[in-house]
Amino acid sequence: MSAEWLRRWRRGGPAERPGGTQGGPGPGPPPTALRYRRPKFLRGVGVEESPRGGRAVRGTGPERPLPWGAGYAEVINAEKSEFNEDQAACCQISIRRREPGLEEDEEWLILCSTQFLTGYYWALFDGHGGPEAAIIASNYLHYCIKQKLEEVVGGITEVQPPMHLSGRCVCDSDPQFVEEKHIHAEDLVVGALENAFQECDEVIGQEMEATNQTGGCTALAALYFQGKLYVANAGDSRAILVLKDSIVPMSCEFTPETERQRLQHLAFLFPKLLDSEFTRFEFPRRLKGDDVGQKVLYRDYFMEGWGYKMVEKADLKYPLVHGHGKQARLLGTLAVSRGLGDHQLKVIDTNVEVKPFLSCIPKVNVFDFALHDIKEDDVLVMATDGLWDVLCNKEVAHMVRTFLAENRTDPHRFSELAKCLVCRARGKERGHQWMLDDSHEASYDDISVFVIPLHNRNED
Amino acid sequence: MSAEWLRRWRRGGPAERPGGTQGGPGPGPPPTALRYRRPKFLRGVGVEESPRGGRAVRGTGPERPLPWGAGYAEVINAEKSEFNEDQAACCQISIRRREPGLEEDEEWLILCSTQFLTGYYWALFDGHGGPEAAIIASNYLHYCIKQKLEEVVGGITEVQPPMHLSGRCVCDSDPQFVEEKHIHAEDLVVGALENAFQECDEVIGQEMEATNQTGGCTALAALYFQGKLYVANAGDSRAILVLKDSIVPMSCEFTPETERQRLQHLAFLFPKLLDSEFTRFEFPRRLKGDDVGQKVLYRDYFMEGWGYKMVEKADLKYPLVHGHGKQARLLGTLAVSRGLGDHQLKVIDTNVEVKPFLSCIPKVNVFDFALHDIKEDDVLVMATDGLWDVLCNKEVAHMVRTFLAENRTDPHRFSELAKCLVCRARGKERGHQWMLDDSHEASYDDISVFVIPLHNRNED
Repeated sequence: MSAEWLRRWRRGGPAERPGGTQGGPGPGPPPTALRYRRPKFLRGVGVEESPRGGRAVRGTGPERPLPWGAGYAEVINAEKSEFNEDQAACCQISIRRREPGLEEDEEWLILCSTQFLTGYYWALFDGHGGPEAAIIASNYLHYCIKQKLEEVVGGITEVQPPMHLSGRCVCDSDPQFVEEKHIHAEDLVVGALENAFQECDEVIGQEMEATNQTGGCTALAALYFQGKLYVANAGDSRAILVLKDSIVPMSCEFTPETERQRLQHLAFLFPKLLDSEFTRFEFPRRLKGDDVGQKVLYRDYFMEGWGYKMVEKADLKYPLVHGHGKQARLLGTLAVSRGLGDHQLKVIDTNVEVKPFLSCIPKVNVFDFALHDIKEDDVLVMATDGLWDVLCNKEVAHMVRTFLAENRTDPHRFSELAKCLVCRARGKERGHQWMLDDSHEASYDDISVFVIPLHNRNED
Repeated sequence: MSAEWLRRWRRGGPAERPGGTQGGPGPGPPPTALRYRRPKFLRGVGVEESPRGGRAVRGTGPERPLPWGAGYAEVINAEKSEFNEDQAACCQISIRRREPGLEEDEEWLILCSTQFLTGYYWALFDGHGGPEAAIIASNYLHYCIKQKLEEVVGGITEVQPPMHLSGRCVCDSDPQFVEEKHIHAEDLVVGALENAFQECDEVIGQEMEATNQTGGCTALAALYFQGKLYVANAGDSRAILVLKDSIVPMSCEFTPETERQRLQHLAFLFPKLLDSEFTRFEFPRRLKGDDVGQKVLYRDYFMEGWGYKMVEKADLKYPLVHGHGKQARLLGTLAVSRGLGDHQLKVIDTNVEVKPFLSCIPKVNVFDFALHDIKEDDVLVMATDGLWDVLCNKEVAHMVRTFLAENRTDPHRFSELAKCLVCRARGKERGHQWMLDDSHEASYDDISVFVIPLHNRNED
């Protein structure tokens, strides 16, 4: 498929946008020289000047409600970068049924014909090395998802996906083979999301090359579709379900630390990727001359445990994965190991490319509403690392439950809650510092938060 | 280190065996032309004739108790192969302290000097393609573990392993770096086990090449050391803790199905490994000519979900991972994706090597006795797939609890319980079939079971 629709659209193809997406950000050449770009669902018009002074928290208001009455709020970083790194998107995704046998080109001519199935989509992107990748991702990922879902829609609408998308039965026992592999409609949606992230990464690579821009972003996307919630994550944002009696993590973070073994294994298989500039071994600290000839603690790709290694001169090179916690870096460069973009990224002053080590594949978690009794105050909280760096799941859940219990009747309570969470993580300015209530340092990063009420899911 | 001690031993090195192992199987050239080889701790002398007729269950008796009063029982397969595929080992492992600065060669001369720390070791090996790999593994793995533990013993005996094995402090903040990475003595034992499996795999490769033999084996090893139980697994055997109120899985199985993504990814990175004989894609069934040009269900390396792929002629090749459950095969050849040996194995009638896809690295699970109140009837059950193919964890736990509750005073109750478990999985002969009590088919495979009472661990 390889982003054919993007190429057509770039060539000035169809007058209308590829159909069916409502209320969300549409595609368009990324505006240049932005400093602060708010998501379309927040903006009145165009681009605002950076509201850095005072780090005002902006959020959804009563005038433009999001689907399900979801709340969103954001704050820009405290001069960490020249622009806001986070981007958000939210829209309905309408899936058309494809006519069997219809060619891609013919189908293209049917503009937004019959709405067939509807999904709801929320996503957060955290950029690095420039805002462009996050902006493109916030403009395109939902198109990629729409396209990948439409490609398999014939299988999704069956109780059990047919072996052949056409429905033709080549072999009598095909249904048994599919049954034996436990393949359900849900697996097609997961596959569509995995493929959509790959497609979006390709789109970003083409677009960035064409416009001579650089950078990358993390991506966290939630899709409600056919009674299930799918959360796809590539990066260090996080989504959790805060239910009445439990917290359900819907994502895990992909960082140089959590993916150390994958990264080291790649370097073991393809040593040239390190171009003699890095060592693939992990040590508790950067080694120095005095360590040569000594046996020091180390880990290689196949080890979850630790061992001792006799230090050679080559071990003094900078490690592929180095540092701990928020300081952990891949090739001394990136704080995440998955995401979109970064196609051109090289380690500064070297020929070492970062992209081969990055994965754009999300891990998808599924929550089936049919198996749970969802209560009125149950929500999905999605946020970039700006929030989770200073608040843990338990603290966020406590704030959610307390706030919603104390604000039962406010029709905009989920927006207020999102602002409240962002405010808490941003803290208060004291002199030149941003401090939490408990006088720890607050988050200096961009902070973006969705609070999505699950009980409202059938009201739209 | 590369199996230096093995080379020395082969050259007719020290007259005595590398010291400190008591009561276990010792190294020696593998006997040839075996049909049925029982573990040394069961045998009076030498090799017995195959007791295939009737598939008699053999086990430990009162005359030769195992450490902790552990029970062991086994039965040979129902003519699945010419030899018994399972092998077992059990011994104490005595760890000497290494003198800092002492050269490997000098140290070698100190025969079994001071016993310093003691571990207890139980292991099961399930061979394929010949019995030799399992026999060598049962003879050598504990030596590899002993050696790897001795290499890091200076770090294990500290509350926190030092950055430098010598204890020399090159950098004042070294203890903080180690602390920050959460490195504990336990991690050195895990690392030693991971390295020991690699070393043993190398030993098997050398030994098999030298003696012109073939084959491989799975390996499941349990080590009790310094108050913790370590279970290292590479293959499809399984260990579970049956406690009073819970079942704790201590291993997971590594099969072509559970490791599909790793295997497909390797084939994606190195397509030449498949030598145009296989396709890396997974389909619900083997495709045929009629499927070409159709879109059928498939998965690639990056997908946990499923998608539809337009079938090309190349997709008709045999899949890298094919089949389901016990029928799943790697390259149409092996039912496991991790294990030791198979260095020379090629797919029949091709030049495709299997070894690059096999991993010899175990996953190590740790159970800390300090965190649990172990009761008198709590046991570790280790068994080859012959048991788990027909009994699930819950059934085994139920049998364990019922049997031990009904046999409180029998001093050999753990041996009896092991026999009882093997008997249940083997079933009874009815005509030409082996049937379970519930008239399902019983296990035709070799079945080997250890039942290890945890409450006795401090009595030896």
